[in-house]
Amino acid sequence: MRLLYHLLLSPFSRKVRVVLGEKDLPFELRAEKVWQRRPEFLALNPAAQVPVLVEDDGTVIADSGVITEYLEEVYPEPGLIGSDAKTGAEVRRLVAWFDLKFYREVTRNLTGEKVQKRFLGLGEPSSEAIRAGHANLPVHLDYIAWLTERRNWLAGDFFSLADVAAAAHISTLDYIGDVPWDKHGPAKDWYARIKSRPSFRALLADHIPGLPPPKNYADLDF
Amino acid sequence: MRLLYHLLLSPFSRKVRVVLGEKDLPFELRAEKVWQRRPEFLALNPAAQVPVLVEDDGTVIADSGVITEYLEEVYPEPGLIGSDAKTGAEVRRLVAWFDLKFYREVTRNLTGEKVQKRFLGLGEPSSEAIRAGHANLPVHLDYIAWLTERRNWLAGDFFSLADVAAAAHISTLDYIGDVPWDKHGPAKDWYARIKSRPSFRALLADHIPGLPPPKNYADLDF
Repeated sequence: MRLLYHLLLSPFSRKVRVVLGEKDLPFELRAEKVWQRRPEFLALNPAAQVPVLVEDDGTVIADSGVITEYLEEVYPEPGLIGSDAKTGAEVRRLVAWFDLKFYREVTRNLTGEKVQKRFLGLGEPSSEAIRAGHANLPVHLDYIAWLTERRNWLAGDFFSLADVAAAAHISTLDYIGDVPWDKHGPAKDWYARIKSRPSFRALLADHIPGLPPPKNYADLDF
Repeated sequence: MRLLYHLLLSPFSRKVRVVLGEKDLPFELRAEKVWQRRPEFLALNPAAQVPVLVEDDGTVIADSGVITEYLEEVYPEPGLIGSDAKTGAEVRRLVAWFDLKFYREVTRNLTGEKVQKRFLGLGEPSSEAIRAGHANLPVHLDYIAWLTERRNWLAGDFFSLADVAAAAHISTLDYIGDVPWDKHGPAKDWYARIKSRPSFRALLADHIPGLPPPKNYADLDF
């Protein structure tokens, strides 16, 4: 069985879980405490990060961006990056937007400070980082609104890896109750459409012992 | 004429310049002071970062990872990512290694602190960051040695985007004289092969006013 090393609130692991779901590829999840630097895991990925995918034939693919390009090439249906170079560029631009910029400005400052630091025993969350995360988030939710006023999905008319990447990050914030949905109707409407997809169901059932999500995390009507 | 918005010591801009050179695609360089947040530039790339490529037909592509995937698709010869999914995964894994991990652990701490901060008037370089950069660099040079003992180039038998990405970052450190080549023979041999490629020549001619490179920066025999 295909195996995915992951962590529950890693947005990059979540991105791959949704892509596997969209492409209807069965897989088994294995939580990997990357900070323990297990030698067998380092042999799979010397960068010591999740996600890492191990295919049935033993092929090992590390890094969420690498995994999603690999899956798109080997299992092209349904296409999540688009069939021509320009569409692909817009999809990948928005994936980079969320995986680099949104991660740096928001996810790391909120999910990273509040959850990762606590579970890793790295001390108290930085109130400065948390303030920055809360200040930056509305700008990105407005950008999602701006895009979805002009397009059916973030990168164009089709559901793409851009939507998956954005939702993967935002879902980790929603798990800790940090998304001000009441002030961001259009972004909420977009996220509601994502939540109703079968590929997203497993994420909504996630439950971290000692850190339960708020009730509306899993609600399709939130 | 194809146009590339860039900055001289941006490793990501350098990566794209080398790829354009390898594919023999003529282009014009335009320096973009991204920190000025020029409205016309933000319209090209709301993430306000270089590189941004504008093709002759007006197509705008932002982000070095997006640009290199686009160029590989539209101008496939010579191939820099490989012709099958597994080879592509190894190339992209190493590109991510250098663009994310090496950047975070080394480039940002050395080139970022010493050059960017100074030119942007962001205050004195952090000595803690510089120490971390110097401590991390040898580990990566050893990794390059480990790879090139087993393979002709970083990702396998062919010169690939992995070599371009690694050399782009390292060339910015070499510009400020921060690479201890004397202690890293195999990495030096690999970099010497890169320096002798025609696609790399323009980078070796770079000269920042007020910050000249050391003499051996441009020497093929260094």
